[in-house]
Amino acid sequence: MKESTVPTVIDVDADVTTLINCFTVTPDRQRELVDLLARATEDVMRHRPGFVAANIHASLDGTHVVNYAQWASVEAFQAMLTDPVCQEHMSAAGQLGSAEPVLYTVESVHHH
Amino acid sequence: MKESTVPTVIDVDADVTTLINCFTVTPDRQRELVDLLARATEDVMRHRPGFVAANIHASLDGTHVVNYAQWASVEAFQAMLTDPVCQEHMSAAGQLGSAEPVLYTVESVHHH
Repeated sequence: MKESTVPTVIDVDADVTTLINCFTVTPDRQRELVDLLARATEDVMRHRPGFVAANIHASLDGTHVVNYAQWASVEAFQAMLTDPVCQEHMSAAGQLGSAEPVLYTVESVHHH
Repeated sequence: MKESTVPTVIDVDADVTTLINCFTVTPDRQRELVDLLARATEDVMRHRPGFVAANIHASLDGTHVVNYAQWASVEAFQAMLTDPVCQEHMSAAGQLGSAEPVLYTVESVHHH
């Protein structure tokens, strides 16, 4: 599922809060979790106030799925957490793997 | 330390291998680890063949540091792992927090 050709930009000066949600999964559940996160993001999350971007990653070894997401603010992210429809999707994802959602700031960006 | 104003781009069609290295730290070591990773990336890693970009993140709660990096290929990343100077920097980072480096593909990108 390749939902968008618009790239996400990581920039120290961007006014966003970064959510990195790292799921640990068994390899037989990885594809199902990737597809669930992509669908939930398209159908629900991306329409919530303050959503900027989400990027779903699958580890080559099958054991992890990462959502690298950007929200307009910590408050916008926290408001989403209290939304019952969002909670339903997060609960479904949590059935497929253990989630570890953490909020970050971008400290530095380095290029070749 | 804000090393660059050139943004990193996350794109399903980009021909890169994504490394997400998630460090767990105690809050009193977080700043030191962020600075060490930024310095090692500027001085050493970004000059290695196949390095594309690295983005150092600090968690708001002080307990994590994430390097979201891009390499031209899995082989370029693995070659870096065998470089003695790179190993020295990785070992120094490992003294400050427990690293979990995992390679990923970008499965989908979603925008508001």
